[in-house]
Amino acid sequence: MVNFDYQTPTRLIFGRGVVSEKLASVMNQYGKRVLITYGGGSIKRTAPGHDKSLYDLVKDTLTDKQVFELGGIQPNPKFNPSVLDGVRMCQDNDIDVILAVGGGSVLDCTKAIAGVAGTLKTKVTDNVEEAWDIVCGRKPTTAAVPIVDIITMAATGSEYDMGGVISRTETNDKLAYFSKLVFPAVSFIDPTYTFTLPVKQTLAGVSDCINHIMESYFCGDHIDMNDAFMEGAVKSLVKNVKIVLEDPQNYNARAEIFYATTLGCNGIYCLGNSPSGWPMHAMEHALSAYYDITHGEGLAIVTPRWMKHILDHSTGELHDQVVERIEKFGKNVFGAENAEASIKAIHDFYRNIGIPMTLPEVGIDDSRLAEMAKHVADNEGLDKAWAPLLEQDILEIFKACMK
Amino acid sequence: MVNFDYQTPTRLIFGRGVVSEKLASVMNQYGKRVLITYGGGSIKRTAPGHDKSLYDLVKDTLTDKQVFELGGIQPNPKFNPSVLDGVRMCQDNDIDVILAVGGGSVLDCTKAIAGVAGTLKTKVTDNVEEAWDIVCGRKPTTAAVPIVDIITMAATGSEYDMGGVISRTETNDKLAYFSKLVFPAVSFIDPTYTFTLPVKQTLAGVSDCINHIMESYFCGDHIDMNDAFMEGAVKSLVKNVKIVLEDPQNYNARAEIFYATTLGCNGIYCLGNSPSGWPMHAMEHALSAYYDITHGEGLAIVTPRWMKHILDHSTGELHDQVVERIEKFGKNVFGAENAEASIKAIHDFYRNIGIPMTLPEVGIDDSRLAEMAKHVADNEGLDKAWAPLLEQDILEIFKACMK
Repeated sequence: MVNFDYQTPTRLIFGRGVVSEKLASVMNQYGKRVLITYGGGSIKRTAPGHDKSLYDLVKDTLTDKQVFELGGIQPNPKFNPSVLDGVRMCQDNDIDVILAVGGGSVLDCTKAIAGVAGTLKTKVTDNVEEAWDIVCGRKPTTAAVPIVDIITMAATGSEYDMGGVISRTETNDKLAYFSKLVFPAVSFIDPTYTFTLPVKQTLAGVSDCINHIMESYFCGDHIDMNDAFMEGAVKSLVKNVKIVLEDPQNYNARAEIFYATTLGCNGIYCLGNSPSGWPMHAMEHALSAYYDITHGEGLAIVTPRWMKHILDHSTGELHDQVVERIEKFGKNVFGAENAEASIKAIHDFYRNIGIPMTLPEVGIDDSRLAEMAKHVADNEGLDKAWAPLLEQDILEIFKACMK
Repeated sequence: MVNFDYQTPTRLIFGRGVVSEKLASVMNQYGKRVLITYGGGSIKRTAPGHDKSLYDLVKDTLTDKQVFELGGIQPNPKFNPSVLDGVRMCQDNDIDVILAVGGGSVLDCTKAIAGVAGTLKTKVTDNVEEAWDIVCGRKPTTAAVPIVDIITMAATGSEYDMGGVISRTETNDKLAYFSKLVFPAVSFIDPTYTFTLPVKQTLAGVSDCINHIMESYFCGDHIDMNDAFMEGAVKSLVKNVKIVLEDPQNYNARAEIFYATTLGCNGIYCLGNSPSGWPMHAMEHALSAYYDITHGEGLAIVTPRWMKHILDHSTGELHDQVVERIEKFGKNVFGAENAEASIKAIHDFYRNIGIPMTLPEVGIDDSRLAEMAKHVADNEGLDKAWAPLLEQDILEIFKACMK
């Protein structure tokens, strides 16, 4: 068991009806000047079982506040214009608290807005590059505007962590912004807001979360209790995603999925585990950077090929570890009998719920595999991962993803 | 899945050597005036693998601070003198932060000191009853002195929750003090400080934690992921307590036990589960109040008898639930084949690790069983528990604990 230093101060308010029940009292803990951030129009539609849209519910709850709005935040949220616009609105209007309403991208963007607005001493319109330095981590975040969120998609776990992914189109940058100061103060999670989520997004959220867990499970030093926790979470996701595909408004299944994804990325599943290097994410980042595919689908495609590659190519003590990990995972999640069956079980699971499981199915041909493999090898440090991967290994894994 | 509202802001710094590594930087976040609280002499002995005692390490780390000390805090910590003395020291010396060093009782006492000292506007020496009202919850805790702790016993989970048990001898009161303001800011957990814990305390801590988990597991509404988490934690405790009985300085086993107990009482194991009524604790509280037995031992004795009683006496839908819960728990923790075998497995486990498993073995005869049963029935609300218990049920459970 390795040492750890863990803290997640966020308050989670979870369940059916919690927004109308508690949003007003939570927001009264802050000042009068509120910036609401959101994405496209989904929060303006009325979800099943609700008598008004989430947008209207929020606005009706905040009638005693001075409310400003930043809408139109896109998936893969952009530094320019979204983060810059949000910071400017915070500065111009002396915002006391930001209320993010939407999915992980809205919240990721809000974290960057909150950290930059809290830290930057001068007008952002005059200091775009300093704002970017804060997002990049070249300048430390020293303060942040408090964040409350209502998260409407079960996927990234941004509602319970301190990071977000921000893209800057003009420089082709896409990077993670982190600061302990941007943990949401309060996250509202009502699973009924996922009842009408498109199937593709439900599946991508589940595979994203399963992969977050697997990146932590497959490591050298691990403990019994974490194994049980992670196997149990994946088993729950496997069971409950099948239920919601049949019955999208099954509350308990939606709730179990949301609960598992909320805990998915803040580390609580794997406290005391040794680092793994997150190899599947590293490879998928190249796929989605080069081809803009859906992150969760890319992860699902890479996962069984990575498992097979390290099973076939590891040696000595590492090989014993690899076999033990793959066997235990497959046995306890899928009832698989050995390592090969374990890999087949996760592949078949993804295929059977409807995730495209080859690169050609998501529009990627073999023309740039070598270029992507070199990019990953040069930039991701996978030669230092638990099961080390060199450029040739990465290329072979990408090739295996073709069919 | 039921709604929940959860927050645990405490920072956990866990592992071998973390005190010398990080205590100084943590304490530098507060002011210069530090009150150290501790119990008997155990922190003044040098633990295996350390070059000085924990007491000396703390004192050497705080040479740039003005340090005050409150030692001699007893198990089942007392309102008078410990809490009152601590509050007086905070008030007289304008304390900025309290550093609790020791087991759960030291930390429980420290929480009451911190809350009363933060809340009371007048000198405690003139307002003992107002101080007691705060501990009782009759007056709200409105502020608290920040708490840092170095926890040296794996048992209560006080290092990761917001409560503590305080006794007031002169009025025969023993009650739980709670406030969100007394979550420790930082908890240091170095499992090597449990290497020399007496066997009796190691066992009592483990059974206390197992019972905390079981009180949450045995309920009406529960989710797959929590089941896996709780079964995994108990399975880890069962496995690792056997290891430390053979090899008390086995770091990984001590670390797994400490990690499981740290998470044992703050609710993270059972978010979304419906309330159970904590019947085993309710009955054990009578045993330890009337006879001052060790809490963990009393819980171990009551547990299998409670399980057997609700298995034999429940009917209809509740009976189906009881059978399902007992069978699933026993199967996944012990490999037991049915409900009866599950109950026998936990009984045998406790017996085999050396816990006295009848009331006579801990010095309790049958002369006051009826009186205790009436006390529990009158005060603990177990008629409203998941598996309701009336006075006659409680008496039968106590009688079953005799042999």
